Amino acid sequence: MSKRIAIIGAGTAGLQLGLYLLKHGVTPTLFTDRRPEEYSGMRLFNTVAHHHVTVEREDLLGCNHWPSDEFGYFGHYYYVGTPQPLQFYGDLVQPSRAIDYRIYQPKLLEDYISRGGEVRYKTVAHEDVAAISSEFDTVVVCTGKGPFGEMFKKVPALTPFDRPQRALCVGLFKGVGPTQTRAVSMYFSPGAGELIEIPTWSFNGWTTALVIENHIGGDLEVLANTKYDEDPKAFIKLLLDKLRKHYPTLAERIDEQEFDLANGPLDILQGGVPPSVRESHALLDNGKLAIALGDVQATVDPVLGQGANMASHAALILGEHLVTHDVYDKRFIERVDNARNDRVLGATRWTNYMLNSLGSLDPNLLQFIGAISQNRHLADEFTENFNFPELQWDCFSSPERIQAWIQKRLSGREDAREAAAA
Amino acid sequence: MSKRIAIIGAGTAGLQLGLYLLKHGVTPTLFTDRRPEEYSGMRLFNTVAHHHVTVEREDLLGCNHWPSDEFGYFGHYYYVGTPQPLQFYGDLVQPSRAIDYRIYQPKLLEDYISRGGEVRYKTVAHEDVAAISSEFDTVVVCTGKGPFGEMFKKVPALTPFDRPQRALCVGLFKGVGPTQTRAVSMYFSPGAGELIEIPTWSFNGWTTALVIENHIGGDLEVLANTKYDEDPKAFIKLLLDKLRKHYPTLAERIDEQEFDLANGPLDILQGGVPPSVRESHALLDNGKLAIALGDVQATVDPVLGQGANMASHAALILGEHLVTHDVYDKRFIERVDNARNDRVLGATRWTNYMLNSLGSLDPNLLQFIGAISQNRHLADEFTENFNFPELQWDCFSSPERIQAWIQKRLSGREDAREAAAA
Repeated sequence: MSKRIAIIGAGTAGLQLGLYLLKHGVTPTLFTDRRPEEYSGMRLFNTVAHHHVTVEREDLLGCNHWPSDEFGYFGHYYYVGTPQPLQFYGDLVQPSRAIDYRIYQPKLLEDYISRGGEVRYKTVAHEDVAAISSEFDTVVVCTGKGPFGEMFKKVPALTPFDRPQRALCVGLFKGVGPTQTRAVSMYFSPGAGELIEIPTWSFNGWTTALVIENHIGGDLEVLANTKYDEDPKAFIKLLLDKLRKHYPTLAERIDEQEFDLANGPLDILQGGVPPSVRESHALLDNGKLAIALGDVQATVDPVLGQGANMASHAALILGEHLVTHDVYDKRFIERVDNARNDRVLGATRWTNYMLNSLGSLDPNLLQFIGAISQNRHLADEFTENFNFPELQWDCFSSPERIQAWIQKRLSGREDAREAAAA
Repeated sequence: MSKRIAIIGAGTAGLQLGLYLLKHGVTPTLFTDRRPEEYSGMRLFNTVAHHHVTVEREDLLGCNHWPSDEFGYFGHYYYVGTPQPLQFYGDLVQPSRAIDYRIYQPKLLEDYISRGGEVRYKTVAHEDVAAISSEFDTVVVCTGKGPFGEMFKKVPALTPFDRPQRALCVGLFKGVGPTQTRAVSMYFSPGAGELIEIPTWSFNGWTTALVIENHIGGDLEVLANTKYDEDPKAFIKLLLDKLRKHYPTLAERIDEQEFDLANGPLDILQGGVPPSVRESHALLDNGKLAIALGDVQATVDPVLGQGANMASHAALILGEHLVTHDVYDKRFIERVDNARNDRVLGATRWTNYMLNSLGSLDPNLLQFIGAISQNRHLADEFTENFNFPELQWDCFSSPERIQAWIQKRLSGREDAREAAAA
């Protein structure tokens, strides 16, 4: 008897899980309320870069339609707007890549359908899960919409904030000139916010995603509260003013005549993300296991671009376990959690640390930034480790660790470590 | 500055950890109260088989002085003394091996010394650990002696019993004829006990370890309470009587004239092991981490031969982490535990399950035994999985899992799984 897996939600985690299962002979049932052709008319979902570890998973799944030699970016520029500004660059070992999710997700949904995946187009509510589960061996919940999260209790020790830590303004723009190397640029304006610029492929080709992370109560918060639709020209003028003031090296590359939302008024999203970690599963009254995946398990602020990447990681770990195990119970989820959680929790803890420390100008973080700004090897490693948030957490989880990370590398002990591990 | 690691206890875990660190350029300090030349005059420590995963670690460490082609055994014979007795055999993929620890441990201690490892010969008490820690970056506690365990609190959820579950009588014997294939033999006498026969290399060459596990209050308990020293002939006569009654296929191979302790009166050990799992670490008052390893972390009854093997597994995991990480703190132990605990906890949970289920004649276990007795592939897999207690726990952690394990293999779905995982 073949395995019966329900996947509720057709985001990146759900789609990649579905493709993984199909590849391994299991035909899941995907619940979504959106057909492939409906995506293009939607408001921007978010602005997501796929780190190369995620791109490698797409290669494995046969769903990488945007090869990195054409669509990839190659590193991170960093700009720190301290009184003596710092500018530096770090390389990625392999290119990463950002595609508008209104293109990416329907394409993966088409892949899924064309390979024989089952889809039920319907709106599923939280209270439908128990009934759905009776048809299936297990139910994977990976839609963050609505109250699904309430099925899975928040884990207080891993949920340090009870509200969003940034007032977000996220959009796809045209009129931003290219950087020397195609790369993400990360800008820090102490006391005001952070801005992540991501070269992103969208409907009209290359555009620039600006993820504008504004400190609550700071000079930039207005960007999250001012509506583009009410007066597009006024909004763009306000944005340009703020960019010139807080992110001057970005403003320099902007053609002010052309600068606007890339495809039209749906290319902007404003609000905030309350970071949370939830229990990885729930036992339903009928004894079936409901498994939290992606944003449902752990929601992060987008400042470090970890959300989709940890969701993709967790999706493939879950897929491997669904394929190789037969009983979906507490022992099953224990194994899944053992395999997925160091990265998932590493991503959330590192992101929460950075939100906090960028806000408070933690001297340990400033020292770290100072050190990597002076040493390209360190900047490269920090940049590459966006792929491996558990390694970032190894570095940032205490002041002693930050010191040890820097000292080891500056004293050449890294070489000794690598020799030892070989 | 080189890393300063204290290892308190020169059992298998401590010695293998020490050899691992030396191999990777770290010179630890080993605390033990016993010099290599003192081991041969000691009472039997225990009767331990090293599964082939452990032998492979010894190959890696360059401390396998007993190559498996000469010293190995090749599988398990099983005898179940139900009214209709079951007898069957399962193969190991690679040979396992049992060496008297009074030979094994001093040889590894000599290896450690000859490779430059530091040793301090002294008796360390629980209250000395804090003072020792001030000299070191971290302290690994891997001696089960005395109250060291009290530094690390018991984990109630993983410590289901508050006392030993078997009255043990463990000895090295001569006069037991060989089995057809050199192998461990496991005998089950329902309602009375279990007996594990292990071909073991000792001072005079091949001997036979008998691990006699007697149910509390049962017909065999007397074997744990009758002292060999008080009347050796009477003890041997009692033992032979009990073996003939409960383990007739073993008794058949015994030369009653020759049957006695192999090397002399020190070759016997009686008592009981209270199974426990303890916190994996303690934070000392000075902020240093004390790490529990081996029996200190998890103590199991010897019925399934898991103790030394899980200790060796944990020792090398810990060694890898000590070498590749620089700060020994809560994050460090989180990573170590993520890597070691599925096997350590799998071994303890599986062992506790078997103690319970062999005692109560759990029908699910009886069905399992019935199934593997009829199918050599299943018996082989069960036997090989003594190397991988987490896989045994995957099978035995619920009745549904036992059913699924059997059904999958009998229906050929195992092939599908292997194809899928390839």
